Amino acid sequence: MSKYSFLYDYAEGAHPDILNALINTNMIQQLGYGEDEYCLTAAELIKKEFDVPTAEIHFVSGGTQANMTVISSVLKPYESVIAAQTGHIAVHETGAIEFTGHKINTIKTADGKLTPELIEPVLIEHCDEHMVVPKLVYISNSTELGTIYTKSDLEKLSIFCKENDLLLFMDGARLGSSLTSKYQDLTAKDIRNYVDVFYIGGTKNGALAGEAIVLLNDDIKEKFRYSMKQKGALLAKSRIFGIQFSVLFQNNLFFELAAHANNLAYKMTQGIDELGYRFIAVPQTNIIFPVIPDKTIKKLEKKFLFYPWQKYDENNTIIRLVTSWATKEEKIVEFLEELKQ
Amino acid sequence: MSKYSFLYDYAEGAHPDILNALINTNMIQQLGYGEDEYCLTAAELIKKEFDVPTAEIHFVSGGTQANMTVISSVLKPYESVIAAQTGHIAVHETGAIEFTGHKINTIKTADGKLTPELIEPVLIEHCDEHMVVPKLVYISNSTELGTIYTKSDLEKLSIFCKENDLLLFMDGARLGSSLTSKYQDLTAKDIRNYVDVFYIGGTKNGALAGEAIVLLNDDIKEKFRYSMKQKGALLAKSRIFGIQFSVLFQNNLFFELAAHANNLAYKMTQGIDELGYRFIAVPQTNIIFPVIPDKTIKKLEKKFLFYPWQKYDENNTIIRLVTSWATKEEKIVEFLEELKQ
Amino acid sequence: MSKYSFLYDYAEGAHPDILNALINTNMIQQLGYGEDEYCLTAAELIKKEFDVPTAEIHFVSGGTQANMTVISSVLKPYESVIAAQTGHIAVHETGAIEFTGHKINTIKTADGKLTPELIEPVLIEHCDEHMVVPKLVYISNSTELGTIYTKSDLEKLSIFCKENDLLLFMDGARLGSSLTSKYQDLTAKDIRNYVDVFYIGGTKNGALAGEAIVLLNDDIKEKFRYSMKQKGALLAKSRIFGIQFSVLFQNNLFFELAAHANNLAYKMTQGIDELGYRFIAVPQTNIIFPVIPDKTIKKLEKKFLFYPWQKYDENNTIIRLVTSWATKEEKIVEFLEELKQ
Amino acid sequence: MSKYSFLYDYAEGAHPDILNALINTNMIQQLGYGEDEYCLTAAELIKKEFDVPTAEIHFVSGGTQANMTVISSVLKPYESVIAAQTGHIAVHETGAIEFTGHKINTIKTADGKLTPELIEPVLIEHCDEHMVVPKLVYISNSTELGTIYTKSDLEKLSIFCKENDLLLFMDGARLGSSLTSKYQDLTAKDIRNYVDVFYIGGTKNGALAGEAIVLLNDDIKEKFRYSMKQKGALLAKSRIFGIQFSVLFQNNLFFELAAHANNLAYKMTQGIDELGYRFIAVPQTNIIFPVIPDKTIKKLEKKFLFYPWQKYDENNTIIRLVTSWATKEEKIVEFLEELKQ
Repeated sequence: MSKYSFLYDYAEGAHPDILNALINTNMIQQLGYGEDEYCLTAAELIKKEFDVPTAEIHFVSGGTQANMTVISSVLKPYESVIAAQTGHIAVHETGAIEFTGHKINTIKTADGKLTPELIEPVLIEHCDEHMVVPKLVYISNSTELGTIYTKSDLEKLSIFCKENDLLLFMDGARLGSSLTSKYQDLTAKDIRNYVDVFYIGGTKNGALAGEAIVLLNDDIKEKFRYSMKQKGALLAKSRIFGIQFSVLFQNNLFFELAAHANNLAYKMTQGIDELGYRFIAVPQTNIIFPVIPDKTIKKLEKKFLFYPWQKYDENNTIIRLVTSWATKEEKIVEFLEELKQ
Repeated sequence: MSKYSFLYDYAEGAHPDILNALINTNMIQQLGYGEDEYCLTAAELIKKEFDVPTAEIHFVSGGTQANMTVISSVLKPYESVIAAQTGHIAVHETGAIEFTGHKINTIKTADGKLTPELIEPVLIEHCDEHMVVPKLVYISNSTELGTIYTKSDLEKLSIFCKENDLLLFMDGARLGSSLTSKYQDLTAKDIRNYVDVFYIGGTKNGALAGEAIVLLNDDIKEKFRYSMKQKGALLAKSRIFGIQFSVLFQNNLFFELAAHANNLAYKMTQGIDELGYRFIAVPQTNIIFPVIPDKTIKKLEKKFLFYPWQKYDENNTIIRLVTSWATKEEKIVEFLEELKQ
Repeated sequence: MSKYSFLYDYAEGAHPDILNALINTNMIQQLGYGEDEYCLTAAELIKKEFDVPTAEIHFVSGGTQANMTVISSVLKPYESVIAAQTGHIAVHETGAIEFTGHKINTIKTADGKLTPELIEPVLIEHCDEHMVVPKLVYISNSTELGTIYTKSDLEKLSIFCKENDLLLFMDGARLGSSLTSKYQDLTAKDIRNYVDVFYIGGTKNGALAGEAIVLLNDDIKEKFRYSMKQKGALLAKSRIFGIQFSVLFQNNLFFELAAHANNLAYKMTQGIDELGYRFIAVPQTNIIFPVIPDKTIKKLEKKFLFYPWQKYDENNTIIRLVTSWATKEEKIVEFLEELKQ
Repeated sequence: MSKYSFLYDYAEGAHPDILNALINTNMIQQLGYGEDEYCLTAAELIKKEFDVPTAEIHFVSGGTQANMTVISSVLKPYESVIAAQTGHIAVHETGAIEFTGHKINTIKTADGKLTPELIEPVLIEHCDEHMVVPKLVYISNSTELGTIYTKSDLEKLSIFCKENDLLLFMDGARLGSSLTSKYQDLTAKDIRNYVDVFYIGGTKNGALAGEAIVLLNDDIKEKFRYSMKQKGALLAKSRIFGIQFSVLFQNNLFFELAAHANNLAYKMTQGIDELGYRFIAVPQTNIIFPVIPDKTIKKLEKKFLFYPWQKYDENNTIIRLVTSWATKEEKIVEFLEELKQ
């Protein structure tokens, strides 16, 4: 590709430390299916980092797989999951959750974030056996719109969920970008206070592939490996996940990579802002949505790859720009230069 | 692990050429979800190797995922798949096929292989709308018992399937070991004459992870990527599959690795045979099943890892020994030494 | 129940002619599973009434069963069905459609009716393999809000569906009330020009139980009985459906019963209107939604059963009143008397 | 049909007392969805008859629906149900159980009956997360082969299930014929001691349609109506089930009808036996399997309908003869006359 890609945060391979670890461990025989030493080490590192000593940690190959395995193992057949209309499971998983038999109750939001106020009407509506039983709340943090759930956001949601016998599941495909956002007060160690289960995204933060599912609530730990195997999510060489997450959670690499992506997004934001373009919201993480004139977009598209998001008005379009752990600062500069001219 | 493992063919990482290729391509930006250059290259190499110019090739992370995606995308809800009782889908996938809604009609076999004669009674039995419609025949080649389908085996099955409006799906998790068996006359280029869809196993033949699904029959190509995405099988960084399969199918590496595993199994077989132990069948590939006295097994277990398969008689047990692309010849020698004493 | 029920149109048993037919045929031996003479006769009567000589007719016990059997037999796993947010499948079937593995794309409507304009954005949004493929449009006629699709409504939808490779399924749980509405120009014989499949509701129009599914499109006829059996919808004594639908479609009874329900609803509407109460929409069939003061509702509830629908404003509530084939005219009079005081 | 049918026990309508009850209650308004007075009454009668005061009773329209609703509501996604190879769910429900996502572990039996000895190897085999977790044992009583589980059979099974953390589900589509078998020592009131859930078949014992599901184990009672609704099994006019089961369990009618069927089967058995024909097993209920010469079968087929079961030898075939609550004694005599000549 001769154009530089701001399409997404998975355009490159993996952080070099990860590749080195794959090489260094390569010929050491291990048990399969997540019972290798590396998965055990990675799990310990994650337990420490998130202060979740009694959690169960499992590794799977991608986000859709994590979502469908968690959600279908938590819900009874007649139970549903509540999600924002923009939630990944609601739109961009080709009906994977419904394929496992469950309805998603979708809620329209301004910023991709659910709140108790938004969820309450769904609970009120679902009152008898002619309707599903909403049982799980699914949130993405950071969200598909680049916004974040802060500590107080999560706390409110968590209290509401407990009051209403709902479980709370946080899709952390971009958890790194949320935790390292300059607008964030939530820490890794806070999460355990609020959610029943979450996952930590590796694919979008410097790994070749891999998401670490963290089961906190004891009720959902039982026989989770059976659920994984049944969904094709228990890999023979799970060692590759163990190795990668061990590297990511040694020496803070996971957070450094995410911070890098955020910082370049902020730099890009500042540059775009200085050129007088507006954003649909204040960019908080590594996904930003500026409003750009259509003719400028055409010019940008000659040198860069990015997604048009939706028409803003007759002559302007909202575009989506994504930075990553691998984005080069010079490319931000080039982009801004091109935008300026 | 201080003991040497003959447990399975996925105890090590990947062939060094694969790791090198990951390093060399690492920072090159690519499109996601299988649309990267490497997947395209790998697909071309596979098309050439198997002489299937019009095939569609897709890459997924593991065998269960390959099986559930293929089978559920081929069958209508009331249709079933026929498999040997020992077939991987029938036993060792935690009900993944049933989870997608389909019955498996299982058939007892002597050697893990299906034949027209074995399948016919199933077709005769399923005669009206109170029963499922058997529509797909699933075979593993090589099988879970280490046996192989030869050219004439496949030809007979294929003719039978066509006569009976059945599709034929070959699980090639160990296709390499089958094609390089010294008892095999089937070639890579023959396969297209017999089956509608098959997959080529990478995980068990030197890749970190990855299976290449080859869709031959036009009827099952439609929107296959939708099926993959829905089952969590469309990875963001599918590039890792493209890179690995490109390496495997350049310079014959795929076949060399499989031949290595087979040859060491033959060496092991010869040694065990010379020591006077019998096998439940003539070993044809890299999985062999000798009958060993229980007290000898206890001794072996101090130095080696392997699975007891089933009791043979009061004092003897059938054990399963698996060699791989990474098995060291000296370890075969050590094993035979230990067995001899 | 000492209070008179306007809760729904299935509070009583069956029209006496139906019970008589059950008695008259009772000891005549028949084949099971829909192959009895009565099902054949009923199918012929329906084919004649709807002028669909090549249709396939199947009988099932209820609406949810009809919907889940039809929809899951039409769609591939990654395909979805489009419905109004108020559609029965979207809300009041406890996730039955999702249980069969399919997403419902819901659309907000003013009156429970879908139009090409409302559907088009859903098609535009669903553009690649990360999203489901909308393939079927589900409409209820009459709708859950008592509104009807007229001939021109259906024609527009049908043209749009054909242009966009969508199938059209009409849930006719209350088809009788639609076809006999005084606002309706659609006739039974018109339907075949517009939809691919529909069903004719017996349960809500004088039968003990039973819906007649009419398959028009050849593509969806194949092995439909297998789909029925798999969903528990193929009854051993399907004769009871054959007998009932034979009676309903002899001598016009089906339409007379529906017209009776509509006419009493119109009478009720006129009375309520004359007392100065408004409706949320012009009542077109046997379900009407007047706006009634809360204190009046309390009084009415002492003598009548009906559902409060939703709050209209601080002091008023929209209520739902349903008349049926069995509703007695004198009860309408009593209700209006009570309302007047 | 001019030929007399011994095909099955649902060739006629319903016992006249049931039709009369439908007429007598017809215009009385009731609540829908199983909340009518008749369902409540029927539930009370069943609780008394089976001495299960704390049971929950629900009514559905047919056996496949009962099986799929019960089994899918009891099992977690990775759990399976154990059944005889001849079990109704294993063969004759078009994959309905697999459609709900669950594997059936089938066991070969001599007589259609499961025993602890037969089940144990299945439990031993299923030992880790690569395989499903067998959790429920499904038995039919009487079985598809006309055999019965006696009190001691059930007791042994029950003890074994409890010891192995298995639930026990009894399909009682022909429970009447089992309980009134002259070989039976099990009584209605004994059942509660052995099983977690069972259903009482109406369809095959004189009702138009309807099976009564009896939930004994508290763990499986929760939100069962949601499961029913989701499977299309919660009928609007459930009153028809309540009315029928009220009649069946007033004045012992349920047992009289079943005894009638059994007694005529015994009469038929005796006559066939006296003519020198053998049976594949001692007939215990209303389904009997004599071995008849092929040329005699051809003659019988001119006057009677019945199913050939399977070839016995070159010149003889096992046929299936079924008597019912509605079978006329004179027809048994005619059949034996025809067989004699």
